[in-house]
Amino acid sequence: MSEGYSPLLAQLIRALQCLPGVGAKSAQRMAFHLLDKDREGASRLVETLGEAASRVHHCDRCRMLTEETRCGFCTSGRRDGTLLCVVESPADVLAVEQSGAYSGRYFVLMGHLSPIDGIGLKELGLDLLEERFAEKSISEVVVATSVTVEGDATAHIVATMARRHQIRASRIAYGVPLGGELEFIDGGTLSRAMTGRRDMEIDATEETQ
Amino acid sequence: MSEGYSPLLAQLIRALQCLPGVGAKSAQRMAFHLLDKDREGASRLVETLGEAASRVHHCDRCRMLTEETRCGFCTSGRRDGTLLCVVESPADVLAVEQSGAYSGRYFVLMGHLSPIDGIGLKELGLDLLEERFAEKSISEVVVATSVTVEGDATAHIVATMARRHQIRASRIAYGVPLGGELEFIDGGTLSRAMTGRRDMEIDATEETQ
Repeated sequence: MSEGYSPLLAQLIRALQCLPGVGAKSAQRMAFHLLDKDREGASRLVETLGEAASRVHHCDRCRMLTEETRCGFCTSGRRDGTLLCVVESPADVLAVEQSGAYSGRYFVLMGHLSPIDGIGLKELGLDLLEERFAEKSISEVVVATSVTVEGDATAHIVATMARRHQIRASRIAYGVPLGGELEFIDGGTLSRAMTGRRDMEIDATEETQ
Repeated sequence: MSEGYSPLLAQLIRALQCLPGVGAKSAQRMAFHLLDKDREGASRLVETLGEAASRVHHCDRCRMLTEETRCGFCTSGRRDGTLLCVVESPADVLAVEQSGAYSGRYFVLMGHLSPIDGIGLKELGLDLLEERFAEKSISEVVVATSVTVEGDATAHIVATMARRHQIRASRIAYGVPLGGELEFIDGGTLSRAMTGRRDMEIDATEETQ
């Protein structure tokens, strides 16, 4: 930073770099944009972020982010309480929601097993999950952790816990994405797709044609 | 947004989208990051942005952003007061500073001539620039507006004003960027580079070899 530069501006550019994916250059662009062209947006951001930072915390039942004691997914009367989807992060909850293919409840681990980073069973809230299992209202746990060594290990632990409570545990299918062309798919994904292959259902009427 | 979603979180994600280049997906990622992993960064951002939004304004001499009445570039005693670089935005001031090739003062137009967007001579602060010219301390105006029709028109107006005050006006060179390979350079740039070609200086000692 040069000597002629406003200290407050420099401070703002540094503060903006706490945002993920924002480096010095983008932060600079953001600072100039906010101060130059969108003071109103800046004020709204200050207000909303301030309020969110002080009021949003984890749902005491599923660990999703919420400003209430219990989040909307847990309190909604329209969700299937016999299904529980276990995900790694609040963003994953939204991704599953947006798929439109699930209407049960959630449990957010807030990470995956990673002893090297100090994330063990306790950090993932597995004691809270155990309590949920013990309630006996869940019939199936859908594990949707990421497809990494850590995600797989986490999935295994959750499934083992479910088994102990006589709850069916399933994992979402991993394979070739929609529109994916085989030649561009990595070997690991293709191997998962191969292992997870399913019988094709052919209609009796088609068979006779 | 689904029904289970926290309203405050939704509000924060909307507020973050006032940042340039930030869409729904990045805003979501930012919100989760701030609330999940960096509350401290969030508080610092709230504080700094709030302070900057209320205190930073334009320098009354060069229109650069600053929290003082007059910015550091205008007040610094170590800058060459006979040189004035005219740029379009505060970010351009930083770009020129980072080049390390300029040590004069600045004038920030805060845009370029664009009648269709209601940006005329007054909006660019040309009356303020005229006052600077009238001070008689400037010997050269370096115009560094962008290479667009609007930027060219703006450069032309600034140069005409300078001429009226018997001040030399120059424009920074536009051409092939460092490391640029000809085959990947667009025609417009190459045309500028061709028009702006300069005689190569060959040493007399080299010539006789």
